[in-house]
Amino acid sequence: MPDDEFSLIEQYFSGLDAGGSVELGVGDDCAILRLETGERLVTSVDTQVDGVHFPPGTPPQHVAFRAVSAAVSDLAAMGARPLGMTLAVTLPQADAAWLALFREGLAAAVSEYSLPLVGGDTTRGPLCLSVQVMGAVPVGKAIKRSGAQVGDTLCVSGYLGDGAGGLAVLEGRWQPGHPHAAYLEQRFYRPRARVALGRQLRDYATAAIDVSDGLLADIGHMAAASGVGVRLEPDSVPLSAALLSHDNKDTALRWALAGGDDYELCFCLPGGHEPPAGAACIGEVVAGEGVDCGDDIDIVSGYQHFSASAPR
Amino acid sequence: MPDDEFSLIEQYFSGLDAGGSVELGVGDDCAILRLETGERLVTSVDTQVDGVHFPPGTPPQHVAFRAVSAAVSDLAAMGARPLGMTLAVTLPQADAAWLALFREGLAAAVSEYSLPLVGGDTTRGPLCLSVQVMGAVPVGKAIKRSGAQVGDTLCVSGYLGDGAGGLAVLEGRWQPGHPHAAYLEQRFYRPRARVALGRQLRDYATAAIDVSDGLLADIGHMAAASGVGVRLEPDSVPLSAALLSHDNKDTALRWALAGGDDYELCFCLPGGHEPPAGAACIGEVVAGEGVDCGDDIDIVSGYQHFSASAPR
Repeated sequence: MPDDEFSLIEQYFSGLDAGGSVELGVGDDCAILRLETGERLVTSVDTQVDGVHFPPGTPPQHVAFRAVSAAVSDLAAMGARPLGMTLAVTLPQADAAWLALFREGLAAAVSEYSLPLVGGDTTRGPLCLSVQVMGAVPVGKAIKRSGAQVGDTLCVSGYLGDGAGGLAVLEGRWQPGHPHAAYLEQRFYRPRARVALGRQLRDYATAAIDVSDGLLADIGHMAAASGVGVRLEPDSVPLSAALLSHDNKDTALRWALAGGDDYELCFCLPGGHEPPAGAACIGEVVAGEGVDCGDDIDIVSGYQHFSASAPR
Repeated sequence: MPDDEFSLIEQYFSGLDAGGSVELGVGDDCAILRLETGERLVTSVDTQVDGVHFPPGTPPQHVAFRAVSAAVSDLAAMGARPLGMTLAVTLPQADAAWLALFREGLAAAVSEYSLPLVGGDTTRGPLCLSVQVMGAVPVGKAIKRSGAQVGDTLCVSGYLGDGAGGLAVLEGRWQPGHPHAAYLEQRFYRPRARVALGRQLRDYATAAIDVSDGLLADIGHMAAASGVGVRLEPDSVPLSAALLSHDNKDTALRWALAGGDDYELCFCLPGGHEPPAGAACIGEVVAGEGVDCGDDIDIVSGYQHFSASAPR
C-alpha cells in the first residue's frame, strides 16, 4: 500500500487515544499507560478474520466493534478494568467510505469500554484484525479459570445462543418473526463484553471464563484448569425470547450449549452466594472431570470436540 | 484451519512464557504481568508481512526473530525494560518442519530480550505476524521523540545501512566479498534491538527514536515532534566494513540514510555529553524544521518522501 494510503488510513484511527490511564498516546515509538499502585497488568490478543469469525460483507462498523468486544471479553473474565488496546489491521484497500464506518464502530467500542486505542499498525491483505487488550486488576484479585471448587454453583450471565442464532439469521438459515431477527442480528454484530460484571465478581467468584468457543467447550476448559467436573442442567441455561421462538427447541438449545460467540461470562460461586442480577445458576461443580449434561444426548451429539468429556 | 491443526501450532508456541514479570502465563483468558511500583507501562505493536517486510522464502527462524526485534526496538527507543509480548500470527498451513524452525527463532528472541511470550492467536491466511510488546519504564523516565533541544548533539548507535545492504545481498542485487555477505545477511535476518542502550540513555538523552523507516525519515519524525531542525553530517554516519567495501559510495550512503530496517537508536544528547560506547555523533539540533544534509543532493534525491524536508 503506498505511503499516502497508509497516512489516509491512519487518519481514521487517530484521536481515539484519550483516557485517564493514558500518559502518552499515539505518535511516539510506544504509548505510555498508567497502572495504579497495587495493580497487575493483564493482557490478551484476539484475531478476527473475514469469512471465518464474521460473514463476508459484515458492515465495517460491526467488524470493528465486534472484534474489540471479543478481545475485551477476556479482560472481563479476569475481572480487570480496561487500560488500553492496540490494533493490527490488514486491509485489502483504502476505501474512504469503508474506513469511515469502521472508525465509527471502533470509536463506539473505545467509548463503550473506556478503552483508548493507543497503538496500531496497518498492512495490506485480506481483511483481518488483531486486537491486543491491556487491563489492570488489584494484586491477587484476578479471577482465573483454575479456582473452581467442588460444591460451587455454576452460573452464566445473560442469554446463551444468541450469537449462533444471530449468525443463522444473517446467513439466511433462520427467519424468526419481528422483533427477534433484529435483536439477534444486533447480538451477533454488537456483543457487549461483561466488564462491569467481571469487576463485581472478582470479590467472590472462584473461577470465570468468557463464553467464546461455546458454553460446553468453555465450561470444559474451566473444569480442566480447576481439576474438577461440572454437572450442567441444560434446561437451566437461559435463552432469550428470540431463541425461545424457534420451532425446534433442540436447535435453540444446541446453539446455547455449543454455538459460541456469546461473550457472556461463565463463573463459579461458593455456597451461599446468589448469582448477581442478570445471571443464572446452571449447574454445580463436582468431583471428577468433564462436563456432565445428563441424558440429553441428542442435543449435544456431534459436538464432542466442544466438550471436555464425550456426552453420554 | 481445523481445531487439531491449531492445537499443533499452539504446541510450538507454548513454554515460552516464563519470566520474572510473569505472574500468570499462557492458558487463562489473560496473562498477568507485574510492574514495579513507580513504573509505567509502555506498549507498541508491529506487523510484518511476507513479501513486504521480508523476502518470500525467508527462513522461518529469522521471520520470527526479526519480527520480535522490530517490535522490541520500539521499547528500546523509549528506554523501557521488556515485560512481555503477545503474538498474532497468520499462517498458510500447519507445517511441522516450518513451525519447529519458527519456534527456534521465537525462543531465541524470547531469550535474547528476556521477553516472555504471554499470549497469542493463530489464524489461517498469508504469512503475517503482529507482535505486541509491553515494557516498563520508571515514571517520567521514558525517552520521547519530542524532547530534542536546539544545541543538542545528534547521535546514532551501531552501523547504518546494513539492513538495506543485507536485503540487497539476499535479493541478489549485490555480491560483496567474504566475510561481508554473511555479515550483512545476519544483520538483515537477526537485527538486535538496542534495549540495554535505551535503558542507559534514559538518564540523559533528551529524545530518541529507533531507525526503522530509514535514518533521514526517522530523524525527520523526531525533529517534527520536537519542533526543531536537524543538521546532519552524512559523512559522519557510521558504515560497517561490509558497506564500505561497496564500489559505489553513493549507494552505500543512500542505504545508510534512507534504507530502513536497521533497528539502531537515533538520539539527542545535551551539550557536554559524549556519545556512549558504540554510538557516534552525526549532527546537531538547530532552530527551524526538517533535516539539512548539506549539499550532497545526489545521495538523497528520489527519497524526499523519507525526509521531513525536501533535500536541497
